[in-house]
Formats: sequence, C-alpha cells, structure tokens
Amino acid sequence: MLYIGIDVGGTNLKAGLVNEKGEILATEKTPLGAFPGPEGFARTLAGLAEAVLRKGGAALEEIEYVGIGIPGAVSGGEILYTANIPMAHVPMEKLFRRHLDLPLLLGNDADCAAVGEWSCGAGRGTKNFVVVTLGTGIGGGLILNGKLHTGMGAGGEVGHIVIVSGGAPCNCGRRGCWEAYASATGLIRLTREAMAAHPESALHMIAAENGGVEGRTAFQAAQMGDETALALCGDYARYLAAGVTDLVNILHPEAVALGGGVAAAPEQLLLEPVRDIVARECYARHTDQVPRIVRAELGNDAGIIGAALLGRAI
Amino acid sequence: MLYIGIDVGGTNLKAGLVNEKGEILATEKTPLGAFPGPEGFARTLAGLAEAVLRKGGAALEEIEYVGIGIPGAVSGGEILYTANIPMAHVPMEKLFRRHLDLPLLLGNDADCAAVGEWSCGAGRGTKNFVVVTLGTGIGGGLILNGKLHTGMGAGGEVGHIVIVSGGAPCNCGRRGCWEAYASATGLIRLTREAMAAHPESALHMIAAENGGVEGRTAFQAAQMGDETALALCGDYARYLAAGVTDLVNILHPEAVALGGGVAAAPEQLLLEPVRDIVARECYARHTDQVPRIVRAELGNDAGIIGAALLGRAI
Repeated sequence: MLYIGIDVGGTNLKAGLVNEKGEILATEKTPLGAFPGPEGFARTLAGLAEAVLRKGGAALEEIEYVGIGIPGAVSGGEILYTANIPMAHVPMEKLFRRHLDLPLLLGNDADCAAVGEWSCGAGRGTKNFVVVTLGTGIGGGLILNGKLHTGMGAGGEVGHIVIVSGGAPCNCGRRGCWEAYASATGLIRLTREAMAAHPESALHMIAAENGGVEGRTAFQAAQMGDETALALCGDYARYLAAGVTDLVNILHPEAVALGGGVAAAPEQLLLEPVRDIVARECYARHTDQVPRIVRAELGNDAGIIGAALLGRAI
Repeated sequence: MLYIGIDVGGTNLKAGLVNEKGEILATEKTPLGAFPGPEGFARTLAGLAEAVLRKGGAALEEIEYVGIGIPGAVSGGEILYTANIPMAHVPMEKLFRRHLDLPLLLGNDADCAAVGEWSCGAGRGTKNFVVVTLGTGIGGGLILNGKLHTGMGAGGEVGHIVIVSGGAPCNCGRRGCWEAYASATGLIRLTREAMAAHPESALHMIAAENGGVEGRTAFQAAQMGDETALALCGDYARYLAAGVTDLVNILHPEAVALGGGVAAAPEQLLLEPVRDIVARECYARHTDQVPRIVRAELGNDAGIIGAALLGRAI
C-alpha cells in the first residue's frame, strides 16, 4: 500500500507519496496563499493529493488514505482549531471527500512529526516516545503505549508548561512558558538580552556578519570561546532541560527527541548538558531508567512522513 | 469474581476484599513495622491477603488476583524502587507466589488511587483522566486512553515538575517543584511564612487552638475573613492551578481529580479559583474543551479499591 501525507505549514502545503517503509516517492507543493475558506481549502488539499499521486505514477486504488498535519487541534475527521488559519470546528474529512474519495486522517503537525520520527526516525522501536520541536514555538508530540496521545484533541502542547513562574509573557496567555525560553524565538530573545548586557561579546560581530540575531548565533560565538555566549548557551540548556525533565517525570518515555533548527547545535553545547541535567534531576534516575535524549532524524520530512503514516498511531 | 487489594502505606498495610463493582466487602490491616527484607515482606503480604479472604468468607478460587499499591515504581511483577522501604529490583510476584498461589499485580500507590477513582469515583466514564493527591507530597496517577500510564515504570511523578524556577528545594533534588508548593507540606510551609510576616493574622490563633499549623489552617482563617489567610489561599490556588494547567496542556484529559486532605477545603477557596485559572490559561480553551476539575470521591479507600481493580487498567 501507499500513503499520501500533507504537511500544512505557515507558507506552503507540502505533499508526499510515501511507501510502507516511510520513504518519500514523490513530492508536490503549493503556496498556502490567501485562505479560501474551509471548502476551498478542502478542494486545494484534494487537488494537491491528486497532483502528487500523478507525479508518483500511482493509482488511486493503491492509496490507503491521505494524512494531513495541521497547525492546530483535531479530533477524528474534524479540525477543532488552527493557530494561523481561520478554522474552527470544520468537518474536514467530509469536505475533502466531496473532491477525492479517499479516507482522510487528521493530525496536529507536531504530532505528525512525532509519528514520523517514531515510525522511521529517532523513536524507532520505542513504545513511549516524545518529540519536542524547537522552532518559532515549541511543538510537542507524544507517542504513549504505541499510540499518538492527544487527549480530547489539544494534548501535547508541551511548549505551554510554565518553567519560570511570572516570567516572560507567552503567546498562549500564560507567563514563563517553556516556549518563551526554549524555542528558537526564546533563544533569540535571550541572545539579544545578553548582547545588550555585554557590548564586548563576540555575539555582536557574529550577528552583524549574518545580518541579524539567529538561533545559532549563541552557539557560533560560544564555539569561538566567547564567555557571554558560553554562559548564554548554559542558561539555554538549563531552560531546555527543565521542560524535558518535567516531561520525563510525567511520562517516563524511552526517548525524547529534539528537533528543529536549534537542535542542530553542537552536541557538547546543547545535547550533552541537557542529558547531564536530565540524568541528574529526573525522578527515573532512582530506577536506573533515564530516557535517551537524542536528536530528531528526519528534519523537514518528518511532517510529511508522519502524516502519511498517521494510521499506525491513531 | 472477587479481588484483593492491598495498600502499602507509610505505617500500615491495609487489605480489602473487593467485588466487581468496587465495593469493599471486608478489610484487614497490619502494621508495616520494621522491614523484614523482601522475602519476609512477601510473606507478610500473602498472610494479609489470606486473612482478608477468610474474614470475607471467600474461597481462594473466587479471587482473580491480588493487587498491591506500593509507594514507589514498579514494572510488571517487579518492584523497581520504593521511597520509604528499602527495596530495589525485587521480583515481588515470584516471592509472593511461594506463599499464596494467586497472580500478583503491582502498581504505584498514587496510580492505584487513580485506577480506583477512574473505575468507581470521580473519573467514571472517562478515557483520559488524571488524579492529583495533595498530601505529604503530591501523588499523581494518569489514565490515558483507558489504561494506566507509567511509561518505563516511573511515570506519573507529577509532583516533580518545576513551577517556580530556582524555588524551594524539593526532596527529589530539583528546586521549585510543584510538590514543594502545592502539597499539604508546601501549604504548611507557606502558612508558616505568612504567619512570620503577619503577627496580627488570625492564623496564629487558629494554629494555637489546633496545636500547630495544619493544611487546613489557612482555609479556616480565610473563612473568618482574615486578610493574610485570604491572600495565602489565593497564592496556594495559583500554585496548584499552575501544575494542573501544565498537566492539562500536556495531556488534555477529560477530568482532573484533586484528592488528599487539602482538597477538602471549601470549594470557593480552592476548587473554584483553580477552575477559573485553568479555564483562563489552558491551551484547550481554544477548542472549548476545558477539562473538569473535581474533587476525588473515594477518600482513603481509593488505594485499596484501585489496587483491587488494577487489572482493568494495566
């Protein structure tokens, strides 16, 4: 059997024709553009699915279902809420099947990334697995007992646990959320604060060379031995580890995979200190079963692959 | 069929003969006493099971299994770690069956309370349900997708998520854990701090009348209109709500039940403000599916009933 996975991103819709091994056989994409309303959006999705089907040279009968990763909350065939697209309580499967008669599976985008990593990436072979994606925000996906866990639909919002009481305001309305500190956006804010306090730091030079402060600016300066940057990277690792430890204490998975651009930071500046802190602080150290903290493996393909393989986890 | 549930507490072992409805037909207890080693402990547990069987007038053939709630982490028939009893990696089912030939199911004590509340208390009919017990520490039990979730064995340690970064030291080794603020012990510490800062507060009089500061001291003074106590109860509700909101954002269960002595506080001083904060701050407000925040219903029986009904959830 084959599957079609569609990743609904902030600017593009990306579709992949995927086989049972999770290999992408063909891709298509189309700009998200101005939102045409739920019915028009369903037509766009169905058209994209047909396009990738044609491009891959597959027949409709070979496709088991179309899986779609949405930046929001879903339940069954319904889109409950989306963050950047104006949809609420939209019966998407029904709308979609008016255009293309294939079963439709819906998932949150971070959940799809988790399914992808679990099926054929950093979480292969685990029963309980957590993916944390460090980007503009923090995305989370939970595989618990071999199934995607979303609770009533909005579970896995791991970026919105408070790690600094009364701390920086978060888009979600709380203060001090993990996302406000440990996302790429949070790291950029912390970097700007460190630069303001330390005019002598190499952070300024690196930011100027790259046309602005980025997620990697802190790591680049730290690799040059800049003391401000080294301290900043240490703070960031502690913020990141605080949330990871919270998740480990609640869920005790076999592995936690960190994805997104920031997770590509040099191992000794990020993954190693995070591992050390989690190993020292998590409750599971008492049972000698400290989870593995690893890098996500599938990069930007995780969303498409996970959407395509959603059926294995829901 | 009948079941035997044993609740291993800090001072007593309590056993109950329980029917399929979760009704306790007979109880027996024995002091924990000096720890006789794993083999002696297995003999004590088997003897207690036999005693409650006799007391209830049941035959061995009527018993499906013996369930035991342990203050620690378990995995299958093995006790991985216990908090107050010196056991680690003990094959308890094997030891137990040398004395009594019945299947043995092991669970963490807070997990058993969750199974009890889920089977026949505050969580009846839910698929995803969280119990938080406010006592000396904070116990947590997670029912996810109709099964007890413990991950690799030490999951559900919800008391050990940080809600005050760099805050009060916790027994677990971290700082600022939810348990250090929202347990009964945490509330007593906060009450003492408020008393030290406010010699005029009615908290002093109430503590003196009751022979010391208790978990309920703050609520009693608040009900008299004492301003220090009212502010303290507000702080406590915010600490409690912070952790509940974290759990809701990660797990999105249908209901969260609060148990333990502190949860018996007047509704308008505790459950109502907690509900208000969670409804205002949790991510699921976007999907109009804010979980119910309720009181646990089974009191001290939850552990026995849940241990007896463990087979339904594992």
